[in-house]
Amino acid sequence: MNSSLSQSQLLSRQNANQLLDSIEAFLFDCDAFLIYDNCTEQVSFGRAISSSMASLRHSTSYDQRHSFSPFPGKKLVFVTNNSTKSRKQYADKFLSLGISVSEDEIFSSSFAAAMYLQLINFPKHKKVYVIGEQGILEELQLAGFTALGGPQDSSTETDTSILTSIGYSVFEPPVFLYHRGWSSCVVGLDQYINYYKLQYGTLCIRENPGCLFIATNRDAVGHMTDLQEWPGAGCMVAAICGSTQKEPIVVGKPSNFLMEFLLKKFDISCSKMCMVGDRLDTDILFGQNAGCRTLLVLSGVTTQSALEDPSNKTQPEYYTSTLSDIFDLMT
Amino acid sequence: MNSSLSQSQLLSRQNANQLLDSIEAFLFDCDAFLIYDNCTEQVSFGRAISSSMASLRHSTSYDQRHSFSPFPGKKLVFVTNNSTKSRKQYADKFLSLGISVSEDEIFSSSFAAAMYLQLINFPKHKKVYVIGEQGILEELQLAGFTALGGPQDSSTETDTSILTSIGYSVFEPPVFLYHRGWSSCVVGLDQYINYYKLQYGTLCIRENPGCLFIATNRDAVGHMTDLQEWPGAGCMVAAICGSTQKEPIVVGKPSNFLMEFLLKKFDISCSKMCMVGDRLDTDILFGQNAGCRTLLVLSGVTTQSALEDPSNKTQPEYYTSTLSDIFDLMT
Repeated sequence: MNSSLSQSQLLSRQNANQLLDSIEAFLFDCDAFLIYDNCTEQVSFGRAISSSMASLRHSTSYDQRHSFSPFPGKKLVFVTNNSTKSRKQYADKFLSLGISVSEDEIFSSSFAAAMYLQLINFPKHKKVYVIGEQGILEELQLAGFTALGGPQDSSTETDTSILTSIGYSVFEPPVFLYHRGWSSCVVGLDQYINYYKLQYGTLCIRENPGCLFIATNRDAVGHMTDLQEWPGAGCMVAAICGSTQKEPIVVGKPSNFLMEFLLKKFDISCSKMCMVGDRLDTDILFGQNAGCRTLLVLSGVTTQSALEDPSNKTQPEYYTSTLSDIFDLMT
Repeated sequence: MNSSLSQSQLLSRQNANQLLDSIEAFLFDCDAFLIYDNCTEQVSFGRAISSSMASLRHSTSYDQRHSFSPFPGKKLVFVTNNSTKSRKQYADKFLSLGISVSEDEIFSSSFAAAMYLQLINFPKHKKVYVIGEQGILEELQLAGFTALGGPQDSSTETDTSILTSIGYSVFEPPVFLYHRGWSSCVVGLDQYINYYKLQYGTLCIRENPGCLFIATNRDAVGHMTDLQEWPGAGCMVAAICGSTQKEPIVVGKPSNFLMEFLLKKFDISCSKMCMVGDRLDTDILFGQNAGCRTLLVLSGVTTQSALEDPSNKTQPEYYTSTLSDIFDLMT
């Protein structure tokens, strides 16, 4: 084993069960290895879950009426930086895999954005502009905020009527005069990003004094399919940093905001929680920042060579090849 | 006058003519105050030019057969960070204002990108992916490079056929498998930016070892109209920095590359050149980095309060309200 791995232990039956005995809750990342959207058939964790569910169905500890609980007596919480879905959409997705998870057990960065605004008592009547997808809009609106933009602006046409009416001969890009009065701009992954949204968000932040710039997360890329990495929210957030020359408030992993919110909600001390995920820069760092136990799974974004790279400074407490190892070794 | 302006002198008839006597060439920025695309009727510099042209037509020094030369014996060079147009398109634009400027006197950041690749002997057969507009494609192709992307990908549809053919059930965003073999990605202002282009550029840079990441410039915003600031190339460049976690080679202002190229081309020493522009962070810095004389015009991006702000560290040698002052005071 490479010396840089000296701080991380390969998960074994012995240390896995020691870990299990010493914690009260698992925080599971669900992005890269739990749900690949419609590609679930191809996903190793999808298979692991199915296989685990199959054995659980035969075990006495499993009760179909209750939430998914492969580790009796342990709390399971799902944490995701994917802001494109709301918690409800995630719960539906879990259910489509045959796993019953309550919305209260799901913490998405879209929900975190809404909770952040709630925590700072952001006035409900003030406008929030969204560069992102349905998940952010849904969570903000569910929390009672006046959220606009997002999917509504994905195919917004040029409106040059005002400029031409005052004598301007305008050229092609869209023209905006309606950005006054926005008090917050929330930016997340947006697969329908366009110049209109970038312009609107830029104007909101640059021209409304005190307008908040909130990022759901800054993941550079995500594994939406097994085959390739795709630009993540970090791409859209950086674009707005580039045009506004401002830095955002980050509410998703690895920021402390989400963890503090979780701790208040569940009243479990950090040392009794184990963060399980496939990313060093978000999942493992998120757990470590809060003083949680950490377990890296190598079946997602982080490869063994990236973990062993001398430049890597983030070492999880444990690591294992696939998520199914955890079920195999702990049960 | 604010003490922070102590290094900058307001342009007067006396110092303007001293400056004129001591230089051989003017480098004029053309972005914010020369050409506002089709909005030329509204632009103060458009008016200044028209007015200057009107007086020049009556003066003996003006010859319609030759290039625009309001200062006899002085070379005039136009330098722009706007990459959306090629030099030819700029020359046509000047001509539409009644000003004859040779393409050889125009240095756009689109041209700079092509010249950079030429300088490093980038192989002509290797592929260059463009996130940007027609100007970049035109200049790269004119220099003989294999440039693709840009406007061609502005409305590219999702192609999921390959993934579905191998059993993947894909979701909505476009899927790319063709990014191998790209050796350079040039990023500039793109008003038709979309997730397809961001994804393609990201893959080119992340997955082709040694692939160059070239930025035409990093201007945060631009004044495409008098009314509002619009996200500039800095927005698209930052997006790619965000998804690739890499920093670009910048070829436009204020980088030294463009200045070194200009110096070789015209064989004039830097101290005999005066950079005239409306931006501290590009124009004035560009001039100062090279040891040129500098003159800031306050009719564009930089306001008097921004110039006087204690946080501003870039002080031009001279400043004046409008470009027409230069013509009035120097002629």
